[in-house]
Amino acid sequence: MSSTDMESFLEIYKQIESEIIADIQSLPALSDNVKKQLTDYYSVCLPYTVPGGKMTRGLTVIKGVEVLKQRALTEKEYKDAAILGWQVEWLQAFFLVADDIMDGSITRRGSPCWYKCPNVTQDNAINDALILENMIYQTLRRHFKTHPSYVQLLELFIDTTFQTEVGQHIDTNGTPYADGERAPLDLTRFTLDRYQGCVRYKTCYYSFYLSCALALAYCGYDPESEEGKVLYKKAEDVCMILGEYFQIQDDVLDAFAPPEVLGKIGTDIEDAKCSWLVCKALELVNDEQRMVLEENYGRHDPVGVQKVKDLYKDLKLEELFRAYEDERKETCDELIAMIRPENFQELFKFLLAKIYKREK
Amino acid sequence: MSSTDMESFLEIYKQIESEIIADIQSLPALSDNVKKQLTDYYSVCLPYTVPGGKMTRGLTVIKGVEVLKQRALTEKEYKDAAILGWQVEWLQAFFLVADDIMDGSITRRGSPCWYKCPNVTQDNAINDALILENMIYQTLRRHFKTHPSYVQLLELFIDTTFQTEVGQHIDTNGTPYADGERAPLDLTRFTLDRYQGCVRYKTCYYSFYLSCALALAYCGYDPESEEGKVLYKKAEDVCMILGEYFQIQDDVLDAFAPPEVLGKIGTDIEDAKCSWLVCKALELVNDEQRMVLEENYGRHDPVGVQKVKDLYKDLKLEELFRAYEDERKETCDELIAMIRPENFQELFKFLLAKIYKREK
Repeated sequence: MSSTDMESFLEIYKQIESEIIADIQSLPALSDNVKKQLTDYYSVCLPYTVPGGKMTRGLTVIKGVEVLKQRALTEKEYKDAAILGWQVEWLQAFFLVADDIMDGSITRRGSPCWYKCPNVTQDNAINDALILENMIYQTLRRHFKTHPSYVQLLELFIDTTFQTEVGQHIDTNGTPYADGERAPLDLTRFTLDRYQGCVRYKTCYYSFYLSCALALAYCGYDPESEEGKVLYKKAEDVCMILGEYFQIQDDVLDAFAPPEVLGKIGTDIEDAKCSWLVCKALELVNDEQRMVLEENYGRHDPVGVQKVKDLYKDLKLEELFRAYEDERKETCDELIAMIRPENFQELFKFLLAKIYKREK
Repeated sequence: MSSTDMESFLEIYKQIESEIIADIQSLPALSDNVKKQLTDYYSVCLPYTVPGGKMTRGLTVIKGVEVLKQRALTEKEYKDAAILGWQVEWLQAFFLVADDIMDGSITRRGSPCWYKCPNVTQDNAINDALILENMIYQTLRRHFKTHPSYVQLLELFIDTTFQTEVGQHIDTNGTPYADGERAPLDLTRFTLDRYQGCVRYKTCYYSFYLSCALALAYCGYDPESEEGKVLYKKAEDVCMILGEYFQIQDDVLDAFAPPEVLGKIGTDIEDAKCSWLVCKALELVNDEQRMVLEENYGRHDPVGVQKVKDLYKDLKLEELFRAYEDERKETCDELIAMIRPENFQELFKFLLAKIYKREK
């Protein structure tokens, strides 16, 4: 069992799911009827929303513990690391269920978004997102209550959740308000500066830093100690760069990847998202091209969306991205090579390999 | 400063709000522009959504600590208890912002629901609910990180959140699904048995038990000790009865209280809620009256809603409720009188006095 073994990892998912369903089954003062309804519902909800992604975030925790221990993990260590890994996936599931509602998305991982499922509805899905979030803390307590890092683990999830929600706020509040009315699209706000801040909070912490920090916390690195301070900070620095690269890929894929490969239909243009593409485009456009964005960005109109995509092509943004990608790869390689202890480098090489030139 | 001093309690709210806004102001790697946008937004969101209710849940924590200490509180004790009290109010704000979206409510506390505010929109409001929830844990850490009950405080909020979300699920999932489609209204599911389970989870834990348990936890009562076990259990038992009485009042007020007194427009009939009124009505109706419910319950049609309310009047449900209320008052008095230590009784007398014959 190692960080590359998907089957073992999914086996741990099933154990966690069973424990949660058993918890619901044993809730006091509910009729058998109501309990059956709850367990039936979440026995569908959990496998639909939690597993099924690329699971990189979860597997990264296992890889991190392996790298820090510098040896194959014992059965107990593997299970612990996998449980922590699944909590990152649970956090992701919580965010995706909620974000898909907020963004009005249609598909996710090749299937309808959870809130779009006919037996769910949006109102239930909001509550389901909240329940998914809460399950993280139930599982952490079940398995780590007596672990010396228990409080640190709780706080890592709490902080990461806050950071991601701040990012989501920046992302959806790209336009200011005037006299209580949502102001018309203001393209001057789509700057690469704003983009970087948004991505750091919306993506980097939960998609990269959290898994690395969980591995450090599980292995007993005290973030207050001298050694710990350096390690956590180095992890954060590299994760911010990896995360930004990852999100820029995401933005490019949202516009250009075939939906059947990507597993979802991108809606960044319709949703007036602060995407790398629109920020970069605004640096390059002439007045006429800028009008294309003014007139079509942030509208739910297929013809307008196509015009924006055509403009992105005219501006050769995909080619620009390819060059950026090679440059970013080199920067990451250099940064990673400077990390000490050397064995810790492996974790970031693992992450970089997962995302470099990805197609979904 | 005591549990009856609203002004001092609101003063503590302002301190907590300032600390949170200062936290946002000091988030790293964001432009001043983005930070100003965030602080401006939450400087409106927090006072709009958190204070302004009756604040009974929050004040109950202070009352609980007073009762357990059997003396006036020191300045530090008062502040601590008030901070914990405000976290219950923050939890309530999180639930109300989210529930109002899920229920499609229009007004709350005499103003538009947060998601209905023109500068908010539903998408932001979902994220704001999540941020409100997260702030609880940020504030607990800021003020109680070194308190011996810190982990217990965190877990109390985590558990209460889960219980309330389970209750919300039961409440909104009153109708089963058939072949992936939401089945038509099935009145057989509105039983007093189901009602009791729903209310326990949706209301009793967060509105009654949480404040009492926080007071016990803050005062150092270990839930694992012999004395602690008895105290927490007694508190839970009484809170479940008080909470059910409170929710039945709520259901009656939803249908019959003047909106200008209640501060909101009830939508339980439109939302096909498992209300005490519909459960009780179904025990009393003849076939013809049952048809009125079959045809009009759960529809957003003012004429139909009025027909349901007229039926409630024909069945004399308000009068039935008045009799129930007097009977419940007696039961509570008896239960409370049996609580030992005697000083602990005061807390529940305080709660009962807050709700007995309330009009909003």
